[in-house]
Amino acid sequence: MRLSDIAARVGGAVEGDGSVEITGVSSIEEPQPGTITFLSDRKHAQRLAGLAVGAILLPPDAAPAGVPAIRVTNPHLAFVDVVELFHPPVEHPAEIHPTAVVSPTAKLGFGASVGPHVVVGDDVVLGDHAVLHAGVVLYPRVRAGNRFTAYARVVVREDVQIGDRVTLHVGAVVGSDGFGYVPGPEGIRKVPQVGTVVLEDDVEIGANATIDRAALGTTRIGRGTKIDNLVMIAHGCVVGPYSLIAAQTGLAGGTVVGTGVQLGGQVGSAGHLTIGDGARVAAKSGISSDLAPGGIYGGIPAIDIILWRRGAAAIKRMSELFRRVRRLEGRAGVEPEGD
Amino acid sequence: MRLSDIAARVGGAVEGDGSVEITGVSSIEEPQPGTITFLSDRKHAQRLAGLAVGAILLPPDAAPAGVPAIRVTNPHLAFVDVVELFHPPVEHPAEIHPTAVVSPTAKLGFGASVGPHVVVGDDVVLGDHAVLHAGVVLYPRVRAGNRFTAYARVVVREDVQIGDRVTLHVGAVVGSDGFGYVPGPEGIRKVPQVGTVVLEDDVEIGANATIDRAALGTTRIGRGTKIDNLVMIAHGCVVGPYSLIAAQTGLAGGTVVGTGVQLGGQVGSAGHLTIGDGARVAAKSGISSDLAPGGIYGGIPAIDIILWRRGAAAIKRMSELFRRVRRLEGRAGVEPEGD
Amino acid sequence: MRLSDIAARVGGAVEGDGSVEITGVSSIEEPQPGTITFLSDRKHAQRLAGLAVGAILLPPDAAPAGVPAIRVTNPHLAFVDVVELFHPPVEHPAEIHPTAVVSPTAKLGFGASVGPHVVVGDDVVLGDHAVLHAGVVLYPRVRAGNRFTAYARVVVREDVQIGDRVTLHVGAVVGSDGFGYVPGPEGIRKVPQVGTVVLEDDVEIGANATIDRAALGTTRIGRGTKIDNLVMIAHGCVVGPYSLIAAQTGLAGGTVVGTGVQLGGQVGSAGHLTIGDGARVAAKSGISSDLAPGGIYGGIPAIDIILWRRGAAAIKRMSELFRRVRRLEGRAGVEPEGD
Repeated sequence: MRLSDIAARVGGAVEGDGSVEITGVSSIEEPQPGTITFLSDRKHAQRLAGLAVGAILLPPDAAPAGVPAIRVTNPHLAFVDVVELFHPPVEHPAEIHPTAVVSPTAKLGFGASVGPHVVVGDDVVLGDHAVLHAGVVLYPRVRAGNRFTAYARVVVREDVQIGDRVTLHVGAVVGSDGFGYVPGPEGIRKVPQVGTVVLEDDVEIGANATIDRAALGTTRIGRGTKIDNLVMIAHGCVVGPYSLIAAQTGLAGGTVVGTGVQLGGQVGSAGHLTIGDGARVAAKSGISSDLAPGGIYGGIPAIDIILWRRGAAAIKRMSELFRRVRRLEGRAGVEPEGD
Repeated sequence: MRLSDIAARVGGAVEGDGSVEITGVSSIEEPQPGTITFLSDRKHAQRLAGLAVGAILLPPDAAPAGVPAIRVTNPHLAFVDVVELFHPPVEHPAEIHPTAVVSPTAKLGFGASVGPHVVVGDDVVLGDHAVLHAGVVLYPRVRAGNRFTAYARVVVREDVQIGDRVTLHVGAVVGSDGFGYVPGPEGIRKVPQVGTVVLEDDVEIGANATIDRAALGTTRIGRGTKIDNLVMIAHGCVVGPYSLIAAQTGLAGGTVVGTGVQLGGQVGSAGHLTIGDGARVAAKSGISSDLAPGGIYGGIPAIDIILWRRGAAAIKRMSELFRRVRRLEGRAGVEPEGD
Repeated sequence: MRLSDIAARVGGAVEGDGSVEITGVSSIEEPQPGTITFLSDRKHAQRLAGLAVGAILLPPDAAPAGVPAIRVTNPHLAFVDVVELFHPPVEHPAEIHPTAVVSPTAKLGFGASVGPHVVVGDDVVLGDHAVLHAGVVLYPRVRAGNRFTAYARVVVREDVQIGDRVTLHVGAVVGSDGFGYVPGPEGIRKVPQVGTVVLEDDVEIGANATIDRAALGTTRIGRGTKIDNLVMIAHGCVVGPYSLIAAQTGLAGGTVVGTGVQLGGQVGSAGHLTIGDGARVAAKSGISSDLAPGGIYGGIPAIDIILWRRGAAAIKRMSELFRRVRRLEGRAGVEPEGD
């Protein structure tokens, strides 16, 4: 593909030879000859000298690279378009594999692609262009909108409702029982988990992540929210739209997450609390009380990240601090206590 | 269902109009008209005013609500009975799906329900009323008691022994190899994991959790213990009865957990140590030595939770503490050290 | 099996009656009569008195046990050989189960064993003696070397390349999409994940672990590296050879791990940093910057483990420290600040 054609597709201006042939895409950390890459982060500007690629997407204010370029406002976003040019989404044939077990009462929309060993339960309703990869199991009465994609071995339990353009990655589980028990005279009694899960439009759930159904009512994942691998969303959580939840994070029952929240990896949240809109929480933090909107938090328990960073830095100096206090006590003639 | 009928089922006394029709159940946080809910936690008592439900389960000492009520000793436990009245367990037909692959040497008990694409290996023995959902794989010589339920895609490796009324949620893995290696002259040598796993009666294992088999001997989960999603129980752990282990917690090899222990989410335990009966451990804690029975613990490493909370609160004040010591040093005329 | 025969197999010297019949293996913590066990750790030496086993593997310098023994340089390594004598690996018949769906363009090597409900995609190429257990899904163009073992429900996404003698445990996922998004004018835009994963020779991946494919380029797991259950390796990580990564650990995108690194359980690493050769990181640590080779680290953020242990121990004494500073302030006549 010629560079000028790429520029036309991404709405950018060619700088240098627009007739150069581009054969693919690569990253600026691992540049490949003949490919196109992009510069978005200033810290990579030093890599431009002698960069062995065919072309580069540059922001308007970057210094010229030694190779042909396309100037665009947002090189990262434009690069996504270019990646899709070279790697168009896989087309799945509109057919139902003979080994799939599809209930006669299920309704599949136009263009459905159902892979080997898939199971579609009674009264499931799917929109158009659903793609169910090998081994997917949809329990009865699951409903999903258009362009639903479930990778291999995804399981969706009964009655879960799914919007348009939702993607579930390999092994993700949606609608499993919440962890609810009551101590009783005959041991621990299970509380039936009779609520459900709603995944709104454009949600994506990572590999082997689990989203539990509510005990009563609904566990909800808001429009456009993306959830990474091995995340656990417990029963009754409500996650707002356009949030990002990184891998291995867990939300206990009834956590309320706002709009545009970002949770790092391995974060944990106690249940029945609220994480305000736009809050960002550092990886490995433990959230034990409400977090105000817009803040940046870290630590166990999670506090303002500046305070937490100072505290964490001080950890290294605790021996020093004890020594200094001991010395002051010696000077003051007070007996060191508990030392 | 009339309220008086519900009261009779849960052994409670009607307060107000017992003839009111109840159409379902709801939570006090999300009350639904016409449904019955319950009050167990005093902190919700303020929600009683104007509560838009059909009826409520109340403890003997609670103030009257503005709606018909049933008085019972333990409203939460009674509510579980009521939920089951409205949501009886799904009945599974006693049949083996034609796509299931069941070894001719396997013995399934009375009323077994075997779903599509299930695999039951040689010499598996199951008690009565087993329910194997779609895609379950039981390796050879697995034994389970009565009322064994395995949700979709559960895998149980060879020789695992399972008691009565055990439930394995979607994607749970029981009996996978432990993580055992010995450094040798030719790199890292795998130690064959030739032990097994025993799950005692009434155990429940969460979605995508993994319970490894012992290297030698047995990994054991005690009667009535409940384990949440994405938990990891390593080889040779022995978990006592009636314990609760929340999501994403991990126990390293050889951990011994007592009776009635409660571990919060994302707890980790070093191996070859003992967590005493009735101990409770806060979410995200890291257990690095034996914990005495009955205590409440928190932190990394886990210590008495009061001590840990004080320490965690002090983290926010470390800058202040350094400043105060510096000032004292100034007053005392000693040179600040390392500052 | 006679003890003298075992000694011959492991190249050790019999001490005592070599004609004793050994019926199996057991651990020194749970010794079984008639079996052989081993002593490698000095802390278990006290267990030798009255040890009710048939025989024991001892290091050259250990005191004699009261039972027949085999003297070897490395009893633990020799014990692995003995375990394999009593528990030879399961043989899998070289056959393709009739319910498996194998693409006509896939190439399976000599002796392939393909279980029920397996799916092998177009242009997959496997070496000799592949064993694919029930429900395994290999997407198109996966390539694996000789003696590839995939336990039940393993999924390998398209184009992943796998070396010789690789084992993937139940439910492991290799090649799932990385978690890559760019904020754009129309919400959060997914970055197509068009890279791949390479697993080198002798890699082992634990149950329900997930290894994401790179956005561009390659996620790589080096030769002989072993990864435990529920681990998350994000897109673009490069893990060196002969490393051990314990359960529930997560590496964010672009983490570079050296040779012979050991990461404890539930460790997290921020992305785009380097963990040096031979580094060891304590369980539950959070790595937020490069770690030098050969060091031992702990804490969140991970620092030298000695410093971290001192700091963690000091946490318990924070109340005391504040009290001591307050007392000094009283003596010095300065007003306590913020207290």
